[in-house]
Amino acid sequence: MGGDTLSVHLPPEEGPDAWYNVLPDLPEPLPPPKDDEAGQPRLKMLSQVLLKECLRQETATSRWIPIPQEILDLYRQAGRPRPLFRARRLERRLDTPAKLYFKSEFYSPTGSHKVNTALAQAWYAAAAGFERVTTETGAGQWGTALSYAASLVGLKTTVYWVRAVHDWKADRRNLMRLYGAEVHASPSPVTETGRQLLKEDANHPGSLGIAVSEGLEDARADPKAVYCLGSVLNHVLMHQTIIGLETKKQFEMLGEYPDVLISCLGGGSNFGGFALPFMPDAFHGRPIRFLAAQSEAAPNLQGEYRYDFADHAELTPQLKMYTLGHRKEMTPIRGDGLRYHAAAPILSLLRHLGYIETVAYPADERHVFERARMFVQAEGFLPAPESAYGVACAIDEALKCKEKGERKTIAFNISGHGFMDMEAYRAVLGG
Amino acid sequence: MGGDTLSVHLPPEEGPDAWYNVLPDLPEPLPPPKDDEAGQPRLKMLSQVLLKECLRQETATSRWIPIPQEILDLYRQAGRPRPLFRARRLERRLDTPAKLYFKSEFYSPTGSHKVNTALAQAWYAAAAGFERVTTETGAGQWGTALSYAASLVGLKTTVYWVRAVHDWKADRRNLMRLYGAEVHASPSPVTETGRQLLKEDANHPGSLGIAVSEGLEDARADPKAVYCLGSVLNHVLMHQTIIGLETKKQFEMLGEYPDVLISCLGGGSNFGGFALPFMPDAFHGRPIRFLAAQSEAAPNLQGEYRYDFADHAELTPQLKMYTLGHRKEMTPIRGDGLRYHAAAPILSLLRHLGYIETVAYPADERHVFERARMFVQAEGFLPAPESAYGVACAIDEALKCKEKGERKTIAFNISGHGFMDMEAYRAVLGG
Repeated sequence: MGGDTLSVHLPPEEGPDAWYNVLPDLPEPLPPPKDDEAGQPRLKMLSQVLLKECLRQETATSRWIPIPQEILDLYRQAGRPRPLFRARRLERRLDTPAKLYFKSEFYSPTGSHKVNTALAQAWYAAAAGFERVTTETGAGQWGTALSYAASLVGLKTTVYWVRAVHDWKADRRNLMRLYGAEVHASPSPVTETGRQLLKEDANHPGSLGIAVSEGLEDARADPKAVYCLGSVLNHVLMHQTIIGLETKKQFEMLGEYPDVLISCLGGGSNFGGFALPFMPDAFHGRPIRFLAAQSEAAPNLQGEYRYDFADHAELTPQLKMYTLGHRKEMTPIRGDGLRYHAAAPILSLLRHLGYIETVAYPADERHVFERARMFVQAEGFLPAPESAYGVACAIDEALKCKEKGERKTIAFNISGHGFMDMEAYRAVLGG
Repeated sequence: MGGDTLSVHLPPEEGPDAWYNVLPDLPEPLPPPKDDEAGQPRLKMLSQVLLKECLRQETATSRWIPIPQEILDLYRQAGRPRPLFRARRLERRLDTPAKLYFKSEFYSPTGSHKVNTALAQAWYAAAAGFERVTTETGAGQWGTALSYAASLVGLKTTVYWVRAVHDWKADRRNLMRLYGAEVHASPSPVTETGRQLLKEDANHPGSLGIAVSEGLEDARADPKAVYCLGSVLNHVLMHQTIIGLETKKQFEMLGEYPDVLISCLGGGSNFGGFALPFMPDAFHGRPIRFLAAQSEAAPNLQGEYRYDFADHAELTPQLKMYTLGHRKEMTPIRGDGLRYHAAAPILSLLRHLGYIETVAYPADERHVFERARMFVQAEGFLPAPESAYGVACAIDEALKCKEKGERKTIAFNISGHGFMDMEAYRAVLGG
């Protein structure tokens, strides 16, 4: 390998065989979730509808959690390890001394990094004897990934999808159904929560919080069903560390080490998965920067660090997070997956301790999509709207390196592709 | 490696560095193109608008054509080599003794195998000093691939796109424009051909032949422009042999050899690229079957073997091909890329000599899409409508193996993904 390498393909037999659990390495203990003062047993409720193995992982104290062989096989079937690319053409067009590398999570069966935890959770659900998984989805990437993973392991899936998004994303809805999922616009007539809300407003647009409530209610009522979550929680971020672990090995193969790691951050699963494996080096004093690309529509890392609910309806326990408030109204943006009121507890603590920086881009998204277009024209790959934020941030950093004449190594993660989101590009950039 | 391998990742440094030219190995010489009796100088005209290097390759006599380092770099940037996957879950669900392997051309920046020749042609065009490439496109995959490749090497692209398709494929149109291409619905007002036709009918739906004429006229009128073709010709198939050459090496890594090779066939570029590198073994007596999956809407391999034009408007020289007649009316199908009246001359000769078998699926496409759904639910990857024909054919063969108790090794190529074609799945299978 050398400075002119265009891509790094990690041999499958050298791929990671354990997830990285950052909990024991954190400079301070992670504040635990808590029930509110009134003592509603939310923790107990949650523990009844989530997978036991995931709950165990949520508070695991060992640094490495072995990935079961069957999940390793599923990762491999999903195309892992994924290549790390050098963006040499983009560097030349920017005329920057910086070196740009990007990780290719867009090479995913469903189009995003969400499959990394979906495959794990679906397999654990099947192994535990469940016959069905339930979940909510907002932008639709998570619902698609879980439908896919469940289909592979032979489980049924029920997705509650925020109606306002469900109704216009016909292609993604069809894809979930192609995987065999049952997809309901939320609020839906199949749960008590949904029926109550529809009684008040037959065209209720729904919300992620409501969709969570419906998924939970559905799983609680059926002993053969279990509820799965696609972001925020510790075990979800841990499953995603497969991204950063591969990337780290790929940099070892190159004989390089990144100075800056960049990705978009909504709830935090892709950012955490990419960044956490590099975090121990930062704890030990390595001058590595972690930069989260966000939207001014939901700049949750610029919010308050305090206990808050993870959902609108206050069904979850409270988590200590950087939050804008769990009932914050957020401007609609095309990078819909970034529109979440709070950041994952692990990432919030790391932000609190000064390890994570953040940039929030304007909600009109023009800058972000123009940067994404530069990337598309130079490198050819089409980022998802959310991933475009990480791309924009990497380009902006590369241009700062140009100003300062710094030859930094910048690594960014492209969390998904935009083939099903061309309408977003058209809306922002014109047709 | 062993019988239980789930995927084979060819290390980039072991990837092919030359294309395979089947011409010197053919059991009989390939009949040359010819001008028609009236002596219209079509060959001369064509030689004036095509790339000299591609024309040279069209009749090259050496077995191996070295791939220039810059094109190898472009292939690598496009994610090559691409993995070969074992479809174990599908095998289990079919309960077949056959072993199924599929090549992942869906892992392409633009979504299809077309990039393999687009990158080569765009690079040759830039190296020859051209500033712009022109082309036609039908389904849109070729126009997208050329727009992408031209953008990477710094050329402009002008695409003439059959109006009937252009008008409803808004996403793909936006993608071409995102790559910086100028896209015209054909017939267009920017060429004399187009203007004449629009005078007769302002809403003329266009045809591939008309789009070819416009692209040719445009390139002829501009010394800085050159015309590129995406299928049928010898050099296009040769560029695509990168698919089969990688696949062959991957089977060597497995210590296996396929008994049957299957892919869809429209003009023949993906089928040729996948199959041709295995052909010499068949010439030397190895009992390997080559199976082309087609549509009853365009079963060109069941047509007549004779000289015919490659386009509707009779602008091209005549080629000896299996043809349905160059003005054949063909039922619209969702696998639009298969709707071509003739098969590439090389593949037509091989069919004539008995090396290629063919299956034509009904134009209602239900069987094909149902088979594709089985694949999606078992393996997770979403084939393009055209690729779905190859998938269906592979499953049908695997079921025949089950009936006969034969443990055959079946290899099929998935030439592209279907993320931009979900409407086709919905239309055929219901929503």
